[in-house]
Amino acid sequence: MSRAAIRIRDDFWSAYQELVTGTVIPYQWEALNDRIEGAEPSHAIRNFRIAAGLEEGEFGGFVFQDSDLYKWLEAAAYALRLKPDPELERIADDVIGLIGKAQQADGYLNTYFTIREPDKRWTNLYEAHELYCAGHLFEAAVAYFETTGKRRLLDIACRFADLIDRTFGPGEGQLRAYCGHPEIELALVKLYGATGEERYLKLSKFFVDERGKQPNYFIAEWKRGRTPIWNPGMPDLEVYQAHLPVREQTAAVGHAVRAVYLYSAMADLARLTGDVRLREACERLWFNTTKKQMYITGGIGSTHLGEAFTFDYDLPNDLAYAETCASIGIIFWARRMLRLEARSEYADVMERALYNNVLGSMARDGKHFFYVNPLEVWPEASMRNPDRRHVKPVRQKWFGCSCCPPNVARLLCSLDDYIYDIDEAAGKVYVHLYIGSEAGFEMAGRAVTLRQRSGLPWDGTVKFELSVPGEAGGARFALALRVPNWFQTAEPRLAVNGAACPYRVENGYAVVEREWSDGDRVEWLLPMETVLIGARPEIRANAGKAAIQRGPLVYCVEEADNGAPLAALSLADDPALSAAFVPDLLGGCVVVEGSGEVPADMDWPEDAPYRPLRNASRPKRLKAIPYYLWGNREPGEMSVWLRC
Amino acid sequence: MSRAAIRIRDDFWSAYQELVTGTVIPYQWEALNDRIEGAEPSHAIRNFRIAAGLEEGEFGGFVFQDSDLYKWLEAAAYALRLKPDPELERIADDVIGLIGKAQQADGYLNTYFTIREPDKRWTNLYEAHELYCAGHLFEAAVAYFETTGKRRLLDIACRFADLIDRTFGPGEGQLRAYCGHPEIELALVKLYGATGEERYLKLSKFFVDERGKQPNYFIAEWKRGRTPIWNPGMPDLEVYQAHLPVREQTAAVGHAVRAVYLYSAMADLARLTGDVRLREACERLWFNTTKKQMYITGGIGSTHLGEAFTFDYDLPNDLAYAETCASIGIIFWARRMLRLEARSEYADVMERALYNNVLGSMARDGKHFFYVNPLEVWPEASMRNPDRRHVKPVRQKWFGCSCCPPNVARLLCSLDDYIYDIDEAAGKVYVHLYIGSEAGFEMAGRAVTLRQRSGLPWDGTVKFELSVPGEAGGARFALALRVPNWFQTAEPRLAVNGAACPYRVENGYAVVEREWSDGDRVEWLLPMETVLIGARPEIRANAGKAAIQRGPLVYCVEEADNGAPLAALSLADDPALSAAFVPDLLGGCVVVEGSGEVPADMDWPEDAPYRPLRNASRPKRLKAIPYYLWGNREPGEMSVWLRC
Repeated sequence: MSRAAIRIRDDFWSAYQELVTGTVIPYQWEALNDRIEGAEPSHAIRNFRIAAGLEEGEFGGFVFQDSDLYKWLEAAAYALRLKPDPELERIADDVIGLIGKAQQADGYLNTYFTIREPDKRWTNLYEAHELYCAGHLFEAAVAYFETTGKRRLLDIACRFADLIDRTFGPGEGQLRAYCGHPEIELALVKLYGATGEERYLKLSKFFVDERGKQPNYFIAEWKRGRTPIWNPGMPDLEVYQAHLPVREQTAAVGHAVRAVYLYSAMADLARLTGDVRLREACERLWFNTTKKQMYITGGIGSTHLGEAFTFDYDLPNDLAYAETCASIGIIFWARRMLRLEARSEYADVMERALYNNVLGSMARDGKHFFYVNPLEVWPEASMRNPDRRHVKPVRQKWFGCSCCPPNVARLLCSLDDYIYDIDEAAGKVYVHLYIGSEAGFEMAGRAVTLRQRSGLPWDGTVKFELSVPGEAGGARFALALRVPNWFQTAEPRLAVNGAACPYRVENGYAVVEREWSDGDRVEWLLPMETVLIGARPEIRANAGKAAIQRGPLVYCVEEADNGAPLAALSLADDPALSAAFVPDLLGGCVVVEGSGEVPADMDWPEDAPYRPLRNASRPKRLKAIPYYLWGNREPGEMSVWLRC
Repeated sequence: MSRAAIRIRDDFWSAYQELVTGTVIPYQWEALNDRIEGAEPSHAIRNFRIAAGLEEGEFGGFVFQDSDLYKWLEAAAYALRLKPDPELERIADDVIGLIGKAQQADGYLNTYFTIREPDKRWTNLYEAHELYCAGHLFEAAVAYFETTGKRRLLDIACRFADLIDRTFGPGEGQLRAYCGHPEIELALVKLYGATGEERYLKLSKFFVDERGKQPNYFIAEWKRGRTPIWNPGMPDLEVYQAHLPVREQTAAVGHAVRAVYLYSAMADLARLTGDVRLREACERLWFNTTKKQMYITGGIGSTHLGEAFTFDYDLPNDLAYAETCASIGIIFWARRMLRLEARSEYADVMERALYNNVLGSMARDGKHFFYVNPLEVWPEASMRNPDRRHVKPVRQKWFGCSCCPPNVARLLCSLDDYIYDIDEAAGKVYVHLYIGSEAGFEMAGRAVTLRQRSGLPWDGTVKFELSVPGEAGGARFALALRVPNWFQTAEPRLAVNGAACPYRVENGYAVVEREWSDGDRVEWLLPMETVLIGARPEIRANAGKAAIQRGPLVYCVEEADNGAPLAALSLADDPALSAAFVPDLLGGCVVVEGSGEVPADMDWPEDAPYRPLRNASRPKRLKAIPYYLWGNREPGEMSVWLRC
């Protein structure tokens, strides 16, 4: 598939991209430099200065702290792709210079080991995140090179990748090992893409293939007596997806971010190497993850203990982890599954995670973030019940382990990569996401420009306009528009140049093949129904409950609109939900209102915790806002699922 | 109030007492001797043998392991009170001899410090449980002395108490300190009762008064640099109820067992010293604990982290801790509140905790126990979601920290102490619990025998027969029968010698004062309604749900009777509950059946975690069993609260 030149111009998303470039990236640069008052220090820049010999001191922060800077750099590269910014580019070039100074003579680059344990390189692959950090370096390097054409960071990355390639492998004297935290695997695929160096692809495949083989490397490493960073005990192989060779894995287990980063690389490799068993494993794991272990918001990871998957249908709303990075990781994975095969279910998940879990992780000011994205919050319980301490009712300024904020930044700045797939060979242009944008590509030998305008997430009208300039007439190809999975009764309508147009649905895409001429217009009308969604009975946490969804957005009720306790509020038998855009609420959003109920008697005598049931209720209007906007007012209760 | 001579003869409870004397106590003796295959070793006896110099070795188990033996001895003493058992008495005498050998020359007795840290006595009062273990020694000694008249253990206890009395106190060279785990305070009151030694009462008062004063002793100890057993960090004063002087405490906080043991001693001291502020503190704490932080089963402690209270109305069913010992502790406390003032609400809680949380903690075989008593169980989640690892779906053989099983044994064997209060001065005989029994006491100068027969928990008919032998005619006094809080529509009826008899209700007791004659018969008919109970809206976990209660028993549904997922089952609008005794189910119990509902479509396609709501349901019979019997069949789901 050829690469398209895509620029986002969208009422909804452009504002987010401007927030990221204008606020998030500068803010995070301050954070990386430990200049945010009242926030936990990052130590990231300082670690590089120490490793580079420019400053004296001790390593600070987590063992994987370098990756925060790399992710920030990657985000900065995408920001520069969106809009030139000489000051940002100068900062980036400077910090790339710093990274270069911290690189060791043989190409090794990791501030933790360079500062603290220079003799312990590669001795704790289970915990030490060395290859993980390398992976983020590679991703940043590829992004910066592709945007600016500057090779400095790419050269640094390749020198380190070459050292890793010499160190790891099946050969004599090489380590038959892999990283406790997958990441380098998908990054090596990118490095291969940018450089054309086959050995980076081969090394990625080696890491993926080696994972979970017997005898298990992590067990062997542990028996040798690694210096523990956190856990001196026997490795928990499931947590690190190293319990089975990847082609034998059938269910998502363990640390959720690790899992989806691994599965992303597996999908890349399945595509690039045509490995059918690997592809089947991806499809099995996708099915399990998205059909059995995913929250309606696109969040994954049901427990904060190990930030992990638990098991099928165990999706507690109040204890949810649903880490921001895990949801971003499922978007990475979905994007790669789409490249394997254009099936709308992959894009559906991408859209769900993006509009709900990921978008909800960032405050409207771009300066506060959720690491954990619960579906039900009782602020007092977060403060006073230690089981719920991980569930924050308010977004935080920064985190000691601040993997999530820069991940949000790099995703939102590179969103243009997620909208289209152009399959020139098959003569197909896939539209996965309805985000206003302009895509320029070659099709049937012609330069085509596709302009998309989208009313999402508020309005379902999507319009396309095609430019096929030149004298040679039209270009024949198929436009494949994803049919979203979020309406209930109506079907989307398609019109070409004002005339209703039939379409066939293939793998969830409405396909219209024709000779497209310059100036052709396509209208794609997506029904915007406000729908009540139920969960299957096995998801115990949602029994007797429903969630409100409108278009791609999952809704929630907040204490600010509905009072407390929210649990007392339920949907009326006929909730008669209505939706209306409210311009002055939270920057403007569609609010859903409807008929709810609360117990007739909410004021019990103080001495009565329990008493004979009186089932009487009284009507109460309920008001729901998009989930992604929760927690932007006074802290209070929030719930996605409502009793019905 | 004079002590009554009471013997239980009850269809329901006598069987439990026989289970405890015949099975539980012998089984626990084996456990204390590390002779239960497949169970975690206790180390308790072995520690004493090592401390006594009879064996070489290291201390094993928790720092408070001695208390398991003391609690067992106390239970054995009560068992001997129920029924002579020369073999048990010989074992007890032998082990008392062993305890004597482990006592140091100055009276000190604690195997942990004697074996492991003989120079560190009294240096870690925050964690080390020395005074706590002493308290359990005192309780055992008093019980054994009162049953057998043998002074050996009492002498050991007094020698140790005297050492403690010399060591702790306000005087110069004395420690102004108290134990991290309250227990000695209530035990010293008992020791005072058995010996008449005022200084034991004074010492108890000293410990209670000193607690939480500024400057805080635990902070001072920590600053001095105690050798930590678990937590090297700054003491968490709330967890140990040492955050405020006890008279200023208003809400139950911290470790639940510690809390109720402390409050028990406070109630004793308030009664014995006439301390009004202390009594008011007890009443405030009682109100908070029982009206705001207690499960419907009488369980307390909402979180396993710190085995602790959290805050008002935070009572999650699936994460509940509701430790067996905490529920026993609330019975201890309720008993003492009744002695302060006969109010039925104290006995109501005593009954609730006894019939539900405490009884449910022991398997029908007397050999398996719950430490944690949840109100909702999903066995797979207990295994596979680490947040729920503490919630066991199956009772365990023994525990590394095995405080609960011997606590159950000592409570059930001494249940006769909980039924009556005889207030000769006021001319009142209080009946708190309806347990078949015979009570002999003096009233108005006459020897009276009161025989009670009770159909509880299955049938509400309670009958009394009075013997007032002798020539002097009747004896005038009031019979005060608790009016339970578990019926909804009807009122209990009272008949004397077959004739309906009016009564007045005082503090929740039906009072009938008259001249009672030999052979007088009282019938007390308690309505046995099957009631649906609701929880106040602030208890979020129970919103939209109801619990079934019949008489003193809380009911639950189990997977064995109702299938899974239990969360799919709800009560019909008119559940038409009916109750019937089923002799061959779980040893015979009243089963409640009724109309329930499940979603019309329980079988969803495997690829659908969520879909547009279809609210259709279909009828399904539901069947509930008493909560205390749950988990005695195949492991499966269980729930007390049902959607309605």
